[in-house]
Amino acid sequence: MLSKAKIKFVKSLQIKKYRKQEQCFLVEGAKSVRELLASDFEVTLLLGTEEFLSSHRPTGRMEVIEVKPSELEGLGEFQTNDAALAVARQKPNQPFPLAANEFALVLDDLRDPGNLGTIIRTADWYGIAKIIASEETADVYAPKVISATMGSFTRVSVFYTDLATYLKDTAHRVFGTYLDGKDVHTVDFGAGGLIVIGNESKGIAPPLERYITDKITIPRFGLAESLNAGIATAVVCDNVRRPRVSR
Amino acid sequence: MLSKAKIKFVKSLQIKKYRKQEQCFLVEGAKSVRELLASDFEVTLLLGTEEFLSSHRPTGRMEVIEVKPSELEGLGEFQTNDAALAVARQKPNQPFPLAANEFALVLDDLRDPGNLGTIIRTADWYGIAKIIASEETADVYAPKVISATMGSFTRVSVFYTDLATYLKDTAHRVFGTYLDGKDVHTVDFGAGGLIVIGNESKGIAPPLERYITDKITIPRFGLAESLNAGIATAVVCDNVRRPRVSR
Repeated sequence: MLSKAKIKFVKSLQIKKYRKQEQCFLVEGAKSVRELLASDFEVTLLLGTEEFLSSHRPTGRMEVIEVKPSELEGLGEFQTNDAALAVARQKPNQPFPLAANEFALVLDDLRDPGNLGTIIRTADWYGIAKIIASEETADVYAPKVISATMGSFTRVSVFYTDLATYLKDTAHRVFGTYLDGKDVHTVDFGAGGLIVIGNESKGIAPPLERYITDKITIPRFGLAESLNAGIATAVVCDNVRRPRVSR
Repeated sequence: MLSKAKIKFVKSLQIKKYRKQEQCFLVEGAKSVRELLASDFEVTLLLGTEEFLSSHRPTGRMEVIEVKPSELEGLGEFQTNDAALAVARQKPNQPFPLAANEFALVLDDLRDPGNLGTIIRTADWYGIAKIIASEETADVYAPKVISATMGSFTRVSVFYTDLATYLKDTAHRVFGTYLDGKDVHTVDFGAGGLIVIGNESKGIAPPLERYITDKITIPRFGLAESLNAGIATAVVCDNVRRPRVSR
């Protein structure tokens, strides 16, 4: 049985202000909660149906409450969740080391939560575990982002920081997507580097341009003016990972 | 000045039943309406602010009404539109010829309007102008789809039909994304063919499998279980269009 206070607390985590205050976030749906329970995130509260809990009895010190599917309705961002919902602790926002032979993404004001979630999922598919994001980028702990990652939020770290400062100090190559760069089909991406993805409508902010060592472009064969930011990220990642053929 | 009847008519087009009845659809926002006015769609009604109409005085027999930005609010699916909104006639749902050296997409129950819109935009970028969609696929004329295409709905045709019947009769190669197919990095796509994209959670329906001549797979380098359907479409299109290098 869910207390009114618990319901209020869970619902409050849909809002960034309260997520920040509590340093917690919501994970919704069977698949995402399963991935959360298997990760190194600290889970503080698990609400699950009898069916979910019978197959995913969690270990650890979290509070576990059995709920009816109808009790889950309206608690989170999504109406269709009828299996499980969890509250977990946010990880501290801190820089991570980047190996010389490692690729990471740099997101310059990616505002759309669905785009950010899809980019995290795509990074995970392509074996990219680190993302550096500008402070204006969508909150990785927003329910829409967590949901769109399809569990990949457990394997990809996001560090929010001032990008100009970050890029100024990096020893890595810095790739940036522009309309007049080198064709990604022929670029030699080398062993590692940072891949900067620009804002959905404005692209990469002009003050960052001086830090881009390699301008790259996804070749266009038709008439669309641009690609969705998540789509562009995926196409670049696929080209980064593709075995190079010497010509 | 907008009459109540006009407001009611425009709002009704957010709903599929009324779109179908009226054989009309909504286009929202300056960029999309601009692309619509330059296309071969028949526009019946244009609502524009003074600013929009002064730079886009349309030709043709449509009804034009100047509105205040505040009058546009709440009329369409999106709240942020403060420039223009148009009503246009749907095109009849009919098959199109496909040249032997042409690529087209086949969408098997793509349910998410955002995904469908992004796929249409991506197809347009990669010079693919024809999409065959199962009858359960999202409605191309839904406001969310139109908006996500960023104007590409004017250049990409969608034909809804029974896919098994369609694929049974095609003379084209039929590529389908599976988890155990040939690596898209090494597949030779040849000069033309159909690219089947499966449903977001279920993939390609089993009854269609017999019509797939070439199973293909996007290679995975990390741990995500799958890619978003729009992302997968883009990666395949990029590989289709990439110049083949002989090895």
